[in-house]
Amino acid sequence: MAPPFVRPTVRDMDGYTPGEQPASGSRVVKLNTNENPFPPSPKVIQAIRQVDAETLRRYPNPTADTFRDAVGKLFGVSRDQIIAGNGSDDILTITTRTFVPPGGSLASPDPSYSLYPILAKLEDARFVTVPWLDGWDLPVDALVDTNANAIYIANPNAPSGTYVSPKRIVELAKKFKGLVLVDEAYADFAEGNCVSLVKEHANVVVSRSLSKAYSLAGLRFGFAIGQEQVIAEMMKVKDSYNCDVLSIAAATAAIEDQDYAKFTWEHIKAERTRVTDELTAIGFNVIPSQANFVLATAPHGQAKALYDGLKAEGILVRYFDKPGLSDKLRITIGTSQENNALLGVLKSLTAVEKVA
Amino acid sequence: MAPPFVRPTVRDMDGYTPGEQPASGSRVVKLNTNENPFPPSPKVIQAIRQVDAETLRRYPNPTADTFRDAVGKLFGVSRDQIIAGNGSDDILTITTRTFVPPGGSLASPDPSYSLYPILAKLEDARFVTVPWLDGWDLPVDALVDTNANAIYIANPNAPSGTYVSPKRIVELAKKFKGLVLVDEAYADFAEGNCVSLVKEHANVVVSRSLSKAYSLAGLRFGFAIGQEQVIAEMMKVKDSYNCDVLSIAAATAAIEDQDYAKFTWEHIKAERTRVTDELTAIGFNVIPSQANFVLATAPHGQAKALYDGLKAEGILVRYFDKPGLSDKLRITIGTSQENNALLGVLKSLTAVEKVA
Repeated sequence: MAPPFVRPTVRDMDGYTPGEQPASGSRVVKLNTNENPFPPSPKVIQAIRQVDAETLRRYPNPTADTFRDAVGKLFGVSRDQIIAGNGSDDILTITTRTFVPPGGSLASPDPSYSLYPILAKLEDARFVTVPWLDGWDLPVDALVDTNANAIYIANPNAPSGTYVSPKRIVELAKKFKGLVLVDEAYADFAEGNCVSLVKEHANVVVSRSLSKAYSLAGLRFGFAIGQEQVIAEMMKVKDSYNCDVLSIAAATAAIEDQDYAKFTWEHIKAERTRVTDELTAIGFNVIPSQANFVLATAPHGQAKALYDGLKAEGILVRYFDKPGLSDKLRITIGTSQENNALLGVLKSLTAVEKVA
Repeated sequence: MAPPFVRPTVRDMDGYTPGEQPASGSRVVKLNTNENPFPPSPKVIQAIRQVDAETLRRYPNPTADTFRDAVGKLFGVSRDQIIAGNGSDDILTITTRTFVPPGGSLASPDPSYSLYPILAKLEDARFVTVPWLDGWDLPVDALVDTNANAIYIANPNAPSGTYVSPKRIVELAKKFKGLVLVDEAYADFAEGNCVSLVKEHANVVVSRSLSKAYSLAGLRFGFAIGQEQVIAEMMKVKDSYNCDVLSIAAATAAIEDQDYAKFTWEHIKAERTRVTDELTAIGFNVIPSQANFVLATAPHGQAKALYDGLKAEGILVRYFDKPGLSDKLRITIGTSQENNALLGVLKSLTAVEKVA
């Protein structure tokens, strides 16, 4: 029982359920939480080793300026157009608190990232969903009609892996008076992104994460890019020192080693094509993905059975027991070896299903 | 100009102003932001070095269980009575969002930590202050009469360094129906603390920081202790993965090395006595402190001039240009050498003032 002095909104809600994290050292093939299968750049480890006791003792730079300068150089934007956060979760929390007032509303195409409704709820704001159009196209007019304070678009989308062209986002940004957050946690695996949109559109903010594209889920680092006067407002909302000295050093090293990161992206994209083809060959219906995972409808309505069967073999994928998703599996693209293990087990499980 | 799609509350507010952070490597005596003058335990550096690439690649344990177990052992409480956060700022944000609804109110004795009104404002809640009683005693009845959703008590208090006995906090917790947060960022420098109160009082939560007592301001790590069903509600509000693998490892090593930390506390307490005596001897009126800083009224109303004079000599202290504080300096206790530098400059500056 929640004590009576707890805020009613919190008392009545469930928290966000993160994907299962097996104990470190356990021998599982982990394709359930969209981590990059490759280790981070060796330069990240070097950067961490260089952080000394004196740096740990003192408060960090409150705005992670060395990191912001590295990102600014990469994207051709100024330091003041960037805010760094303790994971893109922190960035999403900051965004919600900056643009969505209590009693206001937050809109998103549906289905999308399951954190968004929780962010709205914590703000005592309504969460309004609009179904994706056919072919996972952005429902621009219906989103505009929500009159929400902000619209969040995961692009590529989770859990579908589908991608909306920047042209469609521009249409939305022009018609909509509120804030448009393009959540680009998976953009480095896609054919394009929306960073250049912020120049022309004050109401567009693009968020990024280092968890997937830079193999740093354990580090908690994300950032957002927007116009200066927009980022300045978000700065007021963040915790004073929201990024620590170790993660600032590590994240900066990761962003600066683009060659290494790109090598991982290319490998993952090639494997994504192969996994998609092989899943299709054994009866899955796979939505073409531009992320580092695929959402695949299982043959014979056996999504849950296959999820359980994979788990029994030490292979974790993600299953969402929700309308529209309960017939599907979301599978992170791993190394070739991990993908082979997945496909091998799925082939034997679906062969059994066909016999049964 | 803030764009029109920014939440009005945010548009109209200023952010929190952190104390000045000189560039790393600059030769200043930094006595302005209450860092511990000693480096963190050598075991912290070792723990950081042991974090490998695979650990960085994966999401962290969402609830920092290894850290919580170390704290549980130290204080004799269960893991589920503890929540870890990205600095005690994160803990304070989580606390505010868990217990203070938009439109509600947050109360605090005044003056106190200047972050509290900002936390209330971000929640669209009223911030209600009650003056400290004579001798910095807790205004129990006036605080109860606020009928706030939560009362935050920094203990030892910032910026006064004064300490309220657990007995007074118990009086408050018994009479008050809302949440009582005892913000113990400085408790390791004091003669007691309120951790044992949570056993009997469901509405008491005690927060701690590793910034000062464990020389880890750069790491961003804090935690709170409360009853299980209270902590469970706070868990719903935090970001899913609010602590990263490096800081969990480092914070755990720090907490486990109590001998090292205690050595720094004893040294700081001894120096606090000496600095208090020497400041008094040159005409300051020093409030007896139980924190790692002192708040001292400058002789001849010269607080601002002395602040500037110290700064010109490369010594940073904190000056608050606010009613009730503008005649005072808040001075962090440094190493003997740093304190000598401070006292030397102050002696020569106050000698000049007397002549003038």
